[in-house]
Amino acid sequence: MRQRRTLRRHWLPFLHWLPRYDRSDLPGDLQAGLTTAVMLIPQGMAYAMLAGLPPIVGLYASLVPLAIYSLLGTSRELAVGPVAMVSLLVAQAVTPLAEQGSASYVALAVMLALMVGAMQLMMGVLRLGFLVNFLSHPVISGFTSAAALIIGFSQLKHLLGADIERSSNIFKVLGAALQQFESWHLATLVIGVGSIVALVAMKKYAPRLPRALVVVVAGTLAVVGFDLANDGVKVVGSVPAGLPELAAPLSWPADVYAQEGLWAALQALVDPLAPLLAPAIVISLVSFMESISVAKAFARQGRYEVDPNQELVALGAANLGGSFFGAYPVTGGFSRTAVNAQAGAKTPLAGLITASVIALTLLWLTPLFYYLPKAVLAAIIFTAVFGLIDLHEVKHLWRVKRSDLALLVLTFAATLGLGIEEGILLGVGASLALFVVRTTRPHTAVLGRLPGTSIYRNVDRYPEAETTPGVLAVRIDAQLYFGNVSFLKEILARLEDERVEGSLRAVVLDASGMNQLDSSAEGALHELLLAYEDRGVRLVLTNVKGPVRDVMKRSGLWDRLGPEGRALSVHEAIERLRTEAPLAEAA
Amino acid sequence: MRQRRTLRRHWLPFLHWLPRYDRSDLPGDLQAGLTTAVMLIPQGMAYAMLAGLPPIVGLYASLVPLAIYSLLGTSRELAVGPVAMVSLLVAQAVTPLAEQGSASYVALAVMLALMVGAMQLMMGVLRLGFLVNFLSHPVISGFTSAAALIIGFSQLKHLLGADIERSSNIFKVLGAALQQFESWHLATLVIGVGSIVALVAMKKYAPRLPRALVVVVAGTLAVVGFDLANDGVKVVGSVPAGLPELAAPLSWPADVYAQEGLWAALQALVDPLAPLLAPAIVISLVSFMESISVAKAFARQGRYEVDPNQELVALGAANLGGSFFGAYPVTGGFSRTAVNAQAGAKTPLAGLITASVIALTLLWLTPLFYYLPKAVLAAIIFTAVFGLIDLHEVKHLWRVKRSDLALLVLTFAATLGLGIEEGILLGVGASLALFVVRTTRPHTAVLGRLPGTSIYRNVDRYPEAETTPGVLAVRIDAQLYFGNVSFLKEILARLEDERVEGSLRAVVLDASGMNQLDSSAEGALHELLLAYEDRGVRLVLTNVKGPVRDVMKRSGLWDRLGPEGRALSVHEAIERLRTEAPLAEAA
Repeated sequence: MRQRRTLRRHWLPFLHWLPRYDRSDLPGDLQAGLTTAVMLIPQGMAYAMLAGLPPIVGLYASLVPLAIYSLLGTSRELAVGPVAMVSLLVAQAVTPLAEQGSASYVALAVMLALMVGAMQLMMGVLRLGFLVNFLSHPVISGFTSAAALIIGFSQLKHLLGADIERSSNIFKVLGAALQQFESWHLATLVIGVGSIVALVAMKKYAPRLPRALVVVVAGTLAVVGFDLANDGVKVVGSVPAGLPELAAPLSWPADVYAQEGLWAALQALVDPLAPLLAPAIVISLVSFMESISVAKAFARQGRYEVDPNQELVALGAANLGGSFFGAYPVTGGFSRTAVNAQAGAKTPLAGLITASVIALTLLWLTPLFYYLPKAVLAAIIFTAVFGLIDLHEVKHLWRVKRSDLALLVLTFAATLGLGIEEGILLGVGASLALFVVRTTRPHTAVLGRLPGTSIYRNVDRYPEAETTPGVLAVRIDAQLYFGNVSFLKEILARLEDERVEGSLRAVVLDASGMNQLDSSAEGALHELLLAYEDRGVRLVLTNVKGPVRDVMKRSGLWDRLGPEGRALSVHEAIERLRTEAPLAEAA
Repeated sequence: MRQRRTLRRHWLPFLHWLPRYDRSDLPGDLQAGLTTAVMLIPQGMAYAMLAGLPPIVGLYASLVPLAIYSLLGTSRELAVGPVAMVSLLVAQAVTPLAEQGSASYVALAVMLALMVGAMQLMMGVLRLGFLVNFLSHPVISGFTSAAALIIGFSQLKHLLGADIERSSNIFKVLGAALQQFESWHLATLVIGVGSIVALVAMKKYAPRLPRALVVVVAGTLAVVGFDLANDGVKVVGSVPAGLPELAAPLSWPADVYAQEGLWAALQALVDPLAPLLAPAIVISLVSFMESISVAKAFARQGRYEVDPNQELVALGAANLGGSFFGAYPVTGGFSRTAVNAQAGAKTPLAGLITASVIALTLLWLTPLFYYLPKAVLAAIIFTAVFGLIDLHEVKHLWRVKRSDLALLVLTFAATLGLGIEEGILLGVGASLALFVVRTTRPHTAVLGRLPGTSIYRNVDRYPEAETTPGVLAVRIDAQLYFGNVSFLKEILARLEDERVEGSLRAVVLDASGMNQLDSSAEGALHELLLAYEDRGVRLVLTNVKGPVRDVMKRSGLWDRLGPEGRALSVHEAIERLRTEAPLAEAA
């Protein structure tokens, strides 16, 4: 019985919360659902434009995925749908393969949603959510700031009404924009800049207004009122009405199967996916990373827990399901989630309400978008992403950890200079490399006794700590493994030269930093023991942890050390050494 | 003054040992130099054959590099020259680019020596010798065993006198050999198998005989005596006499420069190097790894120290210098070094003597090699490499550390199945990945007090250890970093549920396993502190190491913890908590 309840709560959370729905939550959920929808409609269309897709795809992506996430997710407030970063990644992935806005471009973007969904679902089922940890905070921050700049500059062409080639090189974009100064379109520029000013002003002075909706309505009215569409202001144009139809993003190549058999058909099915594989992996991770950090932040405020692996399942199902209804990849975004929470969302029902509003819009309201100027959508994107540039983190890292700041700057520069995917991969690679390289040059401390206690501390940090003549007590602050075994001997020899008064009688090695022991490290310790035995120096290991002890027992090193070579603490080891004759003499 | 002496000893060790040369060392050095030369001549020719090069290149590689290493190396016994593993890697690298034995093949192999030398020299100067640590013992062992099999099978064609296509797929080689059973050459087979039997027998029953020389002389006499060369037994043929001439391995493309300018000339210079880049990196590391492990093993016996970075410089200079005198990549090999040491080598002068013997051989003795059968050289390679298959390590790892055995088997299988370079890269990648992934799921221990002491240990390992009601004392056996921060909260929540009697009043976190603190981990600890504060639970950090404390101080976390949130030891923390009112009540 307990098993079944756990299963339900784990895989199908709505079976838990929906039957227990408290009617007093309804006003909050209703208001939040409506407010978020009002924000989502213009944003969805804007982000679709950023992804190089027709606006309708943004609305499709705001319908089915949202409903699926609401049923499967563990966050109460998370607003899933099109977001800027993922839209940019989609554009990067698909642009080399098809012409923007074409039918095959849309088909590839939907296919990407299928692949991202399948990967996220698989990662969730295999409980691989922890992989996202490898996107460390400095890497995310550097990447996000750079992506924000790239996204912002990519909207210049819509804001200026000029024909600027798409590029992730912001200097190229800026140069092209300045070069084409002559061809800037004044009316478009006025609408674009006016919308930005209005959005910023409303954020500051009227934070409760539905900003995006206000500029959308105002922009559309301006175009209609002044007949600007005929004057050259680019507008969204006709948006097809009606709900998305069920269609498999991949179709079985029946003709190939009939003519060339199963193997050729499978190959024909999978072949077009190959160039999307790497982007799909990056999008899976980045979209999950964004979503889980937003979900966790709001869960902390609401004092409840989200389950990262179930979040992966929910997000994966949302993308996978969405891809059958014409959606491109989605995730949980920060700004809409904030609005959703602020407007009073209490349960995932708010998301279902938002989806219903989108459905009604698709059925009846799409004709209203005909005269919506693209410059207004660009202004919405522009103001949304510039808030992502994170200077606070730069200051924080400058103060707390400069090596992490270096990772941030590297990722930022690589994303701007080499490309979006290259930037994030380089950032992850560099942070792992830094982690590994640091372990090869471990920090070491010579230990002395704090007077009157049995506590041993680094003598450089605690000058009052007392050392014992002829005894070297050392703590090596790293897990010993193949990457740093050669240092052990080197460091001990150097410390012996520099730090030991009189001739060396014993070495006490505090193993509290050794969290595991691989065979290379076991071999090195064994060699060390033999080398010290040859010289008549006693080696004592202290604070040896269970898993390390197990390896030593199996290899025979534990027995070889003998009872006199092992101690529970540095204090015990040194007290025992003190009472032995030769050391007592030396002291 | 001290500075200059250090410099001399560091970069030019011969300035240290040569002026102080003790004449009593001369007999040992002389005997060792001669003995090694007698072994080196047939081996050098054999390994050149393995590398797909004319035998003379093996002799060139035994001359200048050897002399250079003797002057710059820090090992007294290391015998540098052609070795099996590096020869195999050279063959793998150059075979796809040129026909074996052709002039351009030789030129590419010499170019490879230039590149390997330059890389090793650079790594030595930058003190990057530690990089070789990433070739962990299980990876080396698996790789070496697989390479030995590949090398052994590659000699089948010479032993059988059959025309078998070269391949690193041993099954393919074996299959081809069996298929061509008809074309096996009987006389060749007799010489080949006879030599193997003789080599194995001499190793067992007459270990002091110069085995390789004996089979070389016997084989040559048999060919001459029975006129077997005309009977189809393949022989070495004419070996050019005389010392290698100085020739730059790279020539400046003067015509390109004259016609197309500097940039095109530089490109023409560098272009042919590109396909050799990856193999050069692998050869640099593998050859250094082999050399340094041999040098260290003999230094341990002789109770002196070798300097890994100076060894890189010496090996790099040997390869670089050798490439100007027609040599292909060399390194220090195990078997010749053993012979050198056994024959009484006392100083690097032994190496200089060996080089002189090679020089004399090149000047006057090369005609003697005309009738030397290739099957004898193949037999020398065959018996040399089969000793490299290391089953002992497999047994050892089975007993001590199975995950390391898995790495060994993976590397072995990948080397045989995917290829030489792929195998070693996959092995290194997998061992690093295993190291990193292990840190994401750290071992944790709930701590209890050993009765009557101030020592706290894992309650699962020490059932007698006493815990305090309402207090959770935990040690996390991993460095906290971005890769595992999300587990901290998870683990603490789980332990609280499972392990704490009564309601939680305080968490004591033993930070002795935290060797460093990055900004992600600092953030996670900060969050943890706030979350516990909200619940009225006290968080106390103990055994915080210096570098970790520094980060906490800079971020403000140290102050936020306050004096009651910090303790020198778990004991101190718990004693303090015990005396406080609410805990005293709970207890």
